[in-house]
Amino acid sequence: MKIAVLGTGMVGNTLATKLVQLGHEVRMGSRTPDNVKAAAWVAEAANGASHGTFSDAAAFGEIVFNCTLGTATLDVLKAAGADNLKGKVLVDVSNPLDFSQGMPPRLFVSNDDSLGEQVQRAFPEARVVKALNTINCYVMVDPSRVPGQGTTFVAGNDRAAKNQVRQILQEGFGWKQVVDLGDISNARGTEAYLLLWGRLWGALGTPDFNIGLNVREEIQ
Amino acid sequence: MKIAVLGTGMVGNTLATKLVQLGHEVRMGSRTPDNVKAAAWVAEAANGASHGTFSDAAAFGEIVFNCTLGTATLDVLKAAGADNLKGKVLVDVSNPLDFSQGMPPRLFVSNDDSLGEQVQRAFPEARVVKALNTINCYVMVDPSRVPGQGTTFVAGNDRAAKNQVRQILQEGFGWKQVVDLGDISNARGTEAYLLLWGRLWGALGTPDFNIGLNVREEIQ
Repeated sequence: MKIAVLGTGMVGNTLATKLVQLGHEVRMGSRTPDNVKAAAWVAEAANGASHGTFSDAAAFGEIVFNCTLGTATLDVLKAAGADNLKGKVLVDVSNPLDFSQGMPPRLFVSNDDSLGEQVQRAFPEARVVKALNTINCYVMVDPSRVPGQGTTFVAGNDRAAKNQVRQILQEGFGWKQVVDLGDISNARGTEAYLLLWGRLWGALGTPDFNIGLNVREEIQ
Repeated sequence: MKIAVLGTGMVGNTLATKLVQLGHEVRMGSRTPDNVKAAAWVAEAANGASHGTFSDAAAFGEIVFNCTLGTATLDVLKAAGADNLKGKVLVDVSNPLDFSQGMPPRLFVSNDDSLGEQVQRAFPEARVVKALNTINCYVMVDPSRVPGQGTTFVAGNDRAAKNQVRQILQEGFGWKQVVDLGDISNARGTEAYLLLWGRLWGALGTPDFNIGLNVREEIQ
């Protein structure tokens, strides 16, 4: 499958690398066509890796992963172009983290709204799925690096889009438990969890953790 | 040990019942000395149960559990009396839940502050420990009713107070993993998790769940 990964940071790099390893054609998008980090990624990645502008990448991908900083997300998606996102699954991995007041970060949107909803409102024809934003990127693509049964979440308005993302998470990345929280407003839940996540990182001294959901009655 | 439980709702009732079963003397506090629910609890509970006003209970307890609704918490603690809380471990189980706009609830304080911090600021001589606020009360006092290894959290400025609470959670209630997040500002993390908790309740159809923390390196 042709996949766009927007963002050249640690999250974009890790996801793009894994997706190429899984046999997908991946185009990494950044602000400029000659981005040094994107070019270095292509040079090191397996066959199927390419890079270009946000717009190039979004036009190329059948699925688009937004792996940019939350503070940049809406601008990046505007640069990617609403027409290039139209009808496509847009996996929003970003978080509304505000580091301006130090660590742990606060959220610049929360409680009554979420970044996932802002993205869906700004690009109503994209099929936004909030996913993977509750875990460090190394754990995202390799849940087994943490012992125990981890849980990850999807939220979005389009059931078929969520199922497509679920398939990548389960069959591609190896997640055994993917909980569908419901529509995109549930991004408020997974994004707010970052306030606990940041403090767990501080207390544990590592971001290399996840949470597993235990339920009295079995969930499917 | 003499313990005060402030609140006659499901949380207060469940915690008070368990604490009496563990052999503690428990006084349940409410607004009035003749509260029907508190009297019914005393009639049904084992030896060691008594009830009275918030102030009676707080004066009686060596440890005080705040099990009131978040919207009432500061008023209740004022009624309990700063002098009665002075120097005591105050276990804050409450959450800043605002149900006024329907389900799932929003938070009336979050991100840059927390109810736990508000309580500590309002009662600077109490040794506030935020604990147990991330789980349904039936799971609080019986973590084994949910399969798997669950995790619970403590946050507070007083290490000895947290250790005392940890002992009740571990030896009394049976929690195996109690993570100390640090000072009381970390209540922002566990309270914000309620935004995910409420949505999990909706998606799962039951509040009878917990989360277990899995860490790549073992934590003690």
